[in-house]
This record gives sequence, structure tokens and C-alpha cells, in this order.
Amino acid sequence: VGLLGGSVGLSLRRSGIHVVGYSRRPEGCRAAVEAGAIDEGCTQLEQACEGSDCVVVAAPVDKIAELAAAAADCLEPHALITDVGSTKARITEELLQRWPVAAARFVAAHPIAGSEKTGVEHATASLLDGKVVVLTPHPGLSTDVVERAEAFWRQAGGTVVRMSPHEHDRHLAAISHVPHLLASLLANFPEAESLPLVGSGWQDMTRVAAGDPGMWTAICQHNRHAIVQQLDRFAAELAELRTRVAGPDPAELMRWLEAAKRRKQAVS
Amino acid sequence: VGLLGGSVGLSLRRSGIHVVGYSRRPEGCRAAVEAGAIDEGCTQLEQACEGSDCVVVAAPVDKIAELAAAAADCLEPHALITDVGSTKARITEELLQRWPVAAARFVAAHPIAGSEKTGVEHATASLLDGKVVVLTPHPGLSTDVVERAEAFWRQAGGTVVRMSPHEHDRHLAAISHVPHLLASLLANFPEAESLPLVGSGWQDMTRVAAGDPGMWTAICQHNRHAIVQQLDRFAAELAELRTRVAGPDPAELMRWLEAAKRRKQAVS
Repeated sequence: VGLLGGSVGLSLRRSGIHVVGYSRRPEGCRAAVEAGAIDEGCTQLEQACEGSDCVVVAAPVDKIAELAAAAADCLEPHALITDVGSTKARITEELLQRWPVAAARFVAAHPIAGSEKTGVEHATASLLDGKVVVLTPHPGLSTDVVERAEAFWRQAGGTVVRMSPHEHDRHLAAISHVPHLLASLLANFPEAESLPLVGSGWQDMTRVAAGDPGMWTAICQHNRHAIVQQLDRFAAELAELRTRVAGPDPAELMRWLEAAKRRKQAVS
Repeated sequence: VGLLGGSVGLSLRRSGIHVVGYSRRPEGCRAAVEAGAIDEGCTQLEQACEGSDCVVVAAPVDKIAELAAAAADCLEPHALITDVGSTKARITEELLQRWPVAAARFVAAHPIAGSEKTGVEHATASLLDGKVVVLTPHPGLSTDVVERAEAFWRQAGGTVVRMSPHEHDRHLAAISHVPHLLASLLANFPEAESLPLVGSGWQDMTRVAAGDPGMWTAICQHNRHAIVQQLDRFAAELAELRTRVAGPDPAELMRWLEAAKRRKQAVS
């Protein structure tokens, strides 16, 4: 029950839904109760899952498949499992290969509502409101299970879209994983003597570099293939940009900056 | 009298200093008076400068030297000229070479307080408060002129540091100009289908891409040499990052992400 799991809890509790949290550490349960994210906490997975209609696995991506499989063993037949992981293909493949019974009730999800902040103390009831939640159901799932997962995420405040795990991972590599790595690169980039001169541009561009290194290492491992592809594409575009800046025609650079401005304003 | 010039005006007027604005267009003067940025506006440069103690040239970098020279012709002997340009070497060289008399009273300055927003309507009295203002006085200036320029920028709310124009331009290429180009690159980077999925990370990292393309083209022209150098250094570090992500050792990637996090948190 951290930033995302806690926010799901806070959001659901607005509608009177009973939320049970799981944390191995009693302090983790206590903090989540105090933050209002859960009604009660359990340090035993089996106990936490007992009687649940839906389990949300809100863990680092390299822990999700195993935790989902463990939860599946404790659940009643109708209950479904979903997650909040930033990568989807490898989690789904791992479950399908190693835990096919759990996979039959696992609807992979990614609420696009992260932050560089972590911990239940930063969770808010509105974090998911209006945010896109990508569902990447595998073909083996029943329509009923997928529809219930959709209803669940809508209930939590999200706007649900569906695509395949690989599509998700390719998009996210381009718009989230590579940008995150670039933020870290920009944080490491300046010489120490330049740092006193940084302005709000650098501050905004490096904000996510304060995110959890362990979580992002796991994401990079999971989505390595798509990330490397997008890094190569970025490097190629960087080389073109270098030519544009070094070249003799300022009008061409200006047109490119204008296109970027239009792109940005269209998405804002 | 735009975002920066207007903010200097608003800030100085807090202390009861009389501020005269110059704009070729009467609407420009009117908007600046309405925003409270100036006491009065003039559409004639000569009239605007008459009786002034200090002239602040708040124009795109490719217009500053010429405007400073024009202002110098209208000023009383004691009056000094400063600016807000994001590049310093070429402006200083241009003045020294073409207008040495104007150069003798020109103390180049860069308040590090930009925004992607433009126009006097976004100016605020506190924009400069506590912000670094880099002064890059050339060796031909008298101590008195430089000290008065320092006092002026402190009065406007800034924290003054001094360095050479080339030092300034090298630092700013690394922490502002290259990051700005990367923001535009990130804005142009995603395929159209990925855009509905962007989250707050991408939004923050591309914020400055909404800045004025003309202004940034001029900055890239002025500081081309340092920017290209820093772009090459960035491309080399990007290639190393690619190796780190593609490579077999997640611990190495994690150490690098941890270093970036520490760097970011030390500057926040």
C-alpha cells in the first residue's frame, strides 16, 4: 500500500467500498490505516485476500506476477486480480507460463498516474480521477472478467483504454521510460559548477529523476527491448537536431521548434 | 516590456522607483501600464530613455546589442545599461566591436527566471526574488559601473553572481539551452498514437517546449558553438546509457539512477 495502492484505496473508500491492505510489516499496515487508504491491514497475504472481490497488486514490476499468483491461491472463484505495473508484456507472459490458473483471472492494468514521490503518505483519493488506466487483457480471459476489471478501474476514478501488452510497452517506452532515463541523464549531465545556475526548466525536466531507482531499474529490465529501440530512435533524432543547430539555416530550426510547440500545446 | 522586463518593472515599483517602458506599439505601452509594470510608456526610444539612471534591454538576444547602442545615444553620462539576454558572449563582442562607447556603460546580465509564458500579462513582482542574476562585465568597464549594476539587480530582487561571458554561455548551454532543445525533441518524439497516454512526467519534461520559437532560435544562433559542444557530450552520455540499459548488469544501471537521484535532490 504505497502511493498508487494507497490512492486506489482512498478512492474506493469514497464510495464506501471495504478495503483491506496487505503489508509484510505491521508498520506498513498502520501507516496505511492512518492515511485513510485502507479499512484494515493484514501482514498475512492469505488473510488479506480472504473474501475479497478484487485484488490490486501494487508492487514493483518484478514482484507482480509472483504476488498475483500467491493471491490467486487464496481467492474465491469469482474474485479477480489486477495490478498497477508500468510494464505489461513480461508480467503477463510470466503468469501465463508459470501460473496459468492465476492468469485466468488476472487483468493487467496500468493507471498512468505516477509521481516521483513514494509511500502511502503521498496517496490521495483523487490521484486517479480522470487519469488513463490502460488495460492489457490477454486473449485467454473471459469477457466477464475483463468487464469487471474495467468497472473496477472506472470506480477508482480512471478512464479505461484497452490495448495489447506489447502495444502498451512500446508506447510507454517512448513517452515514459525513455523520458525518465533522460531526466536522470539531465540530472547527471551538468558539471558541478553549473548547478548553482539551474533554473525552473532544468528543475521541471529532472523532477522524475528523484523517483525510486529500484523501481525504475526493474522497469528497464522488464521493458529493455522496447526501451533500447526507443533510445536508438531518440539518438537518431538527437543527431538530426545537432545538424539543425550547427547548420546554416535558422529557419529550419525555427520550424522544428514551432512543430514542437504545436505538439506540446495540443497535448496540454 | 514582456515577461522579464515587466517583472523587473513590477519589482522596482515596489520600492517606489519610477519606471518608464518602451514599446514601438502604443498597445504595448498600454498593456504594460495596465499590468502595473511601468509608470508610463513611450513609443519613442529617445523619449523613453530621457533622464533615466538605468536602462534594461529586455529583448530577444539578437536585438539587444543594437537596442543598447541606440539607448546609449539618448542617455545622460552617468546612466548605465543592462539586459536580460540568455546569451552573453556574442552580445558583448558585438557591442565592443561596433559600439565601443555604448559598451563602456553596458553591464551584461542574465536573470535566471524565464518561463515558457511570454508577455507582460504573466509578469510578477516576485519573479526575480531570490533568483540568480549572472553579471558578465567585460574588462573595459569601470568598477563603479559594475557595482551600480549589481546594486540595481539586487534592488530588483536578484542574487548576483559574476563570471565571464564565455563561462556563462558554456554553463547555460549545459543547463538551459540543451535541456530546452531536448524538451522540444521530447515533444516531437512520440508517435501520434502514444500521445493520449502521456503522464505528468512527459508533461513536465516538455513544458518549456511551449516557449517562443523565435526567441530560442536566436539563442541557438548566438550560442551555437557551446550548444553543439554540449549536444555532442550529451549524445556520448546517451550512448553510455544505452549500453547500461542493454547490458547484463542491472546493479550498474541502479547505481547510475541513484547518482541521478542524489544529484537532483541536492539541487532541489
